[in-house]
Parts: sequence; structure tokens; C-alpha cells
Amino acid sequence: MIAPLAVSMGDPAGIGPEVIAKAWAARAAQRLPLFFAVGDARAIAAVWHGPVTEIGDPSQAAAAFGSALPVLNVEDGGAITPGMADVDGARCALHSLELAAGLARSDAVSALVTGPVSKTQLYQIGFSYPGQTEFIAERCGIAQDNAVMMLAGPTLRVVPITTHVPLAAVSGLLSIELILSKARVAARGLTRNFGIERPRLAFAGFNPHAGEHGALGREEIDILQPAIALLQDEGIDATGPFAADTMFHERARATYDAALCCYHDQALVPLKTLHFDDGVNITLGLPIVRTSPDHGTAFGIAGTNSAHPGAMIAAIRMAGEATARRAAAEA
Amino acid sequence: MIAPLAVSMGDPAGIGPEVIAKAWAARAAQRLPLFFAVGDARAIAAVWHGPVTEIGDPSQAAAAFGSALPVLNVEDGGAITPGMADVDGARCALHSLELAAGLARSDAVSALVTGPVSKTQLYQIGFSYPGQTEFIAERCGIAQDNAVMMLAGPTLRVVPITTHVPLAAVSGLLSIELILSKARVAARGLTRNFGIERPRLAFAGFNPHAGEHGALGREEIDILQPAIALLQDEGIDATGPFAADTMFHERARATYDAALCCYHDQALVPLKTLHFDDGVNITLGLPIVRTSPDHGTAFGIAGTNSAHPGAMIAAIRMAGEATARRAAAEA
Repeated sequence: MIAPLAVSMGDPAGIGPEVIAKAWAARAAQRLPLFFAVGDARAIAAVWHGPVTEIGDPSQAAAAFGSALPVLNVEDGGAITPGMADVDGARCALHSLELAAGLARSDAVSALVTGPVSKTQLYQIGFSYPGQTEFIAERCGIAQDNAVMMLAGPTLRVVPITTHVPLAAVSGLLSIELILSKARVAARGLTRNFGIERPRLAFAGFNPHAGEHGALGREEIDILQPAIALLQDEGIDATGPFAADTMFHERARATYDAALCCYHDQALVPLKTLHFDDGVNITLGLPIVRTSPDHGTAFGIAGTNSAHPGAMIAAIRMAGEATARRAAAEA
Repeated sequence: MIAPLAVSMGDPAGIGPEVIAKAWAARAAQRLPLFFAVGDARAIAAVWHGPVTEIGDPSQAAAAFGSALPVLNVEDGGAITPGMADVDGARCALHSLELAAGLARSDAVSALVTGPVSKTQLYQIGFSYPGQTEFIAERCGIAQDNAVMMLAGPTLRVVPITTHVPLAAVSGLLSIELILSKARVAARGLTRNFGIERPRLAFAGFNPHAGEHGALGREEIDILQPAIALLQDEGIDATGPFAADTMFHERARATYDAALCCYHDQALVPLKTLHFDDGVNITLGLPIVRTSPDHGTAFGIAGTNSAHPGAMIAAIRMAGEATARRAAAEA
């Protein structure tokens, strides 16, 4: 039997608890794999009136899952008011993440799904990572740079080569080495997690019209083209750089398995334009499977029962599928 | 009676002639306004076997339109082979554009729709404008900077504040003055051409997450926010800057009439992701109505009868609607 997935609740005052509860309620219709929540059980009770069973360890999740949402309780004191972020909540979010990540490194849990956290609050309690991904990478003994963020929706997967940096800094950060490193992890991750034997990677140009042969910028000529040639030499199916604006319509999307993009918005704009409610963030390059819904804490709507669980459902399903593929490949 | 629209054929070896002919064939089903083509009649004959009537001046278009595509012939010699671009074709494209633009400045023609040209070929014959838009602006006595490109599809309109420049140069080009100028033309253009009394302009941030209060770049704080505040002071409904990646999904698009974007791909990626086959380029700020299908010459498929006329049909329809609105407003 495959071990359950651990779903960290994220900030208890955000929409994490609600979308996890709604995902559990939809488990049959959505054919979701066995999972349990890790976090403050009171945060679930504050926004949802369905059945909850506190469990003492992951092995108890299976027996509870059919009739109640199993919760591995992490309590850090303080009142929980949906929408009201505070440092107690941040502490709870961090402890939940730590516990869930630790379990995912053991055989007791098959994969890690993380709910949304508030970085502002986490920084106040001394959290010093850019985000959950880097924290998890370190817990897995992986260099932060080797953990690659892929955003995946039903019709598009994107990998931003640079992420949370000022746009004016991107040109200076792009390098052949960085592209090779991201692309290799992306190619391997598509095989391991999505079962794509020979993944097709399409690169977006940095400049308008992919630079028009240098007339509109040289990043394509100086960085992207040589990097793509080296990847092809390694046997990776890499193509481009293409004009970014012609890469994301339906017929174009059918020609690749992932679009490698030079900067955050180049990747995230098409992904969220198409898949705002069901985009999943999957971290490639880790020894564990880790996914996350591609949305934030949404404090503004927390507690109003209006959060859309689509992305959490998609994240749990994708984690389950990736786990099954990895297990089959290793069997 | 409203005068006919003039549709310049663009490069005779590109797909312009084919999509114009297909648009004429679909005129009844698509309820298109009266139009005629301006260009080399042989280019139509090379790719289409429907009826064509050469006309001597625009007033003859109405009588022909029901039974044949009216063409105001512009011939510059040289053989026409679909897909084979040459300088004769470029000369013909330029003369067609000049004639059509001149007619649009008179009362004989109500609006100008331009087919796709090859800039590479045009530059070889000495054309010195960045594109057709700037040429038309000058013919209309408008400074190039005051002619604003808007891309419009059925569910999204975007205005790029900067266009064909290297991405690394954009931060230095963005200024409060530039934004004010583009936004004023955009607001006025939405009223004149689309009948929107109080247009809602939403600005995209330049950096990821719109800069996160300066942590990921300062263009929002230093340039966009002050510009938006000044526009609001003028009574323009301007909002933002918003994180670009959350601006283009369906619910977000319903909250504004046009998205003002900092650079080419920020505007064009979502527009073409959603409306690759029916995007229209409309030039705002001109005394005349001017639209264009948002695609290029596509030499690679010219002559294969596989060009999609959707964007040309949309461009003709939009030109007709804008003309009618302007006429009604002036009546």
C-alpha cells in the first residue's frame, strides 16, 4: 500500500484549511489519493463544519479517511481568526511545514503538499528562506538552486528560469550555466513525475520577437541559443528561443511538454491566464514529491467559504500521480 | 451612406491577399461592412479563384461588392509568387498602403485596414519607419509617439506602453510622461472607437508581484504609482499597478476595459494566448480609423490556402464599428 500524502495547512488564518477541507469533501468525486492534513485542527473547525479526526501518526490516516478529514495536530497557541494573520499563525505554519516535510522524508508519507503561507508573517518570526521551496530543498539536502519550480495546469507547464527578482536584473542573471542547470532538472523531472520519456522543452526568447536576430536585444544570441545547442548535444529535446507571444496559444502548446521562460511573469502570465483556478506548483529536483496550489493565503476571503479548492485538489492529485509514477519506475 | 473601407493588401506574396479574399467570401455570414482591396489584383488571382472586379475609384465599390471582391489595382511589375518575398512586392505593398492611407484621409473612404507587410523587404527599398503605424501617423500629421497601438480580442484589450525595444531597455524608457501620454490616448480612443463612456484602465506592474512594495524593484513606486495618481486626478479611471500574472484570467478581465502593459510581451503574451486567431491591432490617436489583423505575412503558408481569415474579418468588422460610432458621435 502506498503511504498517505501529507498536506501542510499553511497559515491557519489563510484559505489553506478551507481548501484542504473542501478537497477532502470532494475526495470521491475527484478520486483523490489518501491524504491527511498537518496543522492546527482549530483552523479547520473555524471555517468548516465537516467531520475531522485527529490522528497520532500517518499510519492512522487510512482508517479515518473514508469518514473524516484526518488531521495531525500542530498547535502553537493564540486565537485563530480567519483572515487575521499573526505571528502565532506563522509559527504554526512553520511547524506544520517542518513536520510534514520531515515525514515526507520518511517512508510514513509518500509526498508533500504545502498550503499557502504568509511570507511577511514568517519573516517576522525569523524565517530566512525566500519561500517554502527553499526551506524544503534544504531539509532534503538539496542546494536551493537545484530545486526547480514548475507551474503546471491541464494544458500548460512552465518553468521560470529566474523568479523573484526585479525584472531589470534578469538580463544580468541569465547565463548559459543557469539555463543548463534548470533545463536538466526540468527534463528529468518531467520524466520522473509525469512519465514523459523524452520531454520536449521549448524556450521563450527574452526580448520581443525573440530579439529579431539581435535587432531587439542580444540575450537570445549570446545566452539562449548557445545553451539550447549544448542541451541538444546532451540529447535533450530543447528548441527555441521562440517569440514568447506566439508560444502559448492552443496549437503552440501542443508542440512541447514545458515552456522554459526567462522571467517570472513570462511564465506566470500565460499559466494563470489559462489556469488561474487549477494551477499547481511542483518542485522538481527533490528526492521527494512536493506540490502546492498556485495561489496565496488570500486572507481577504478567508472564513467566507468562498475559496475555490480547484488548485488544492489538482495539487493533491498531481502529487499522488507523481508518487505512483516514481514507485512504478523504481519497482 | 457610409463610405467603404479601404483594405491595403500588404505584401502581395504574403497571406494578405488570401485573407482579404476569404473575408469577402464570408461578408454575408460575418455581416461585414462594405470594403474594397487596394493592391495588385494579380496577387488575389494567384491564391483565390473567386470573382474580382477592378474598380477605378472607391465610389464603384458598392455596386461590385455584392457579387465580387472590388480591387483598386496597384501594380509594380515583377512576377508574384506566393511565399516568395522580393523588392517588387515591397514596392507594391508600400504604394498600396500610401494610396489606401491617402484615401482614408478623404471622404471617399471611411476607414483603413492594413494587411501584413514584410519589414525586411520594405527596409531594402528605403522605408525608414518602424512599421506601418508610424508611416500612417505621419501621413495623418500626428507625431509617432501619439499614435498608440492597442491589441484587441473578443475578451481582452491591451496597450503596450513600450513596444519594439530590447527588454533590458524598458526600465529606462518608462516614464511618468510616457505613461500619461499613452493612457490619455487609450482612454479617449476607447470612448471614440468602442463607445465606452468612462473607460477603466488597469495597469500591470513592471516587476514580479508588481514589485512587492519595492522588494522586487521600484518602477511601480517611482513611475507607475505617481502616473496612475495623476491620471486619476484628471478624472481617468486608472487602477493598479497590479501583479501582471493575476490580471488576465477571466474574472480579472471583467474588471477593466484595457490593460496598460509596460512592455511588448507583457501585453502580447496574454492577448495571443487568448486570441491568436482573431486579435486586431487598432491604432488610437489618429484622425482616421485604422485597424490591422494581428499577424504577419506568414510567407511560409502563403499560397497553400491554409491562412485563417479570422483576424482580418475581425479587423474589418472593428473598423466598421468604430467608423459607425465616430459618425454617430459627430452627428
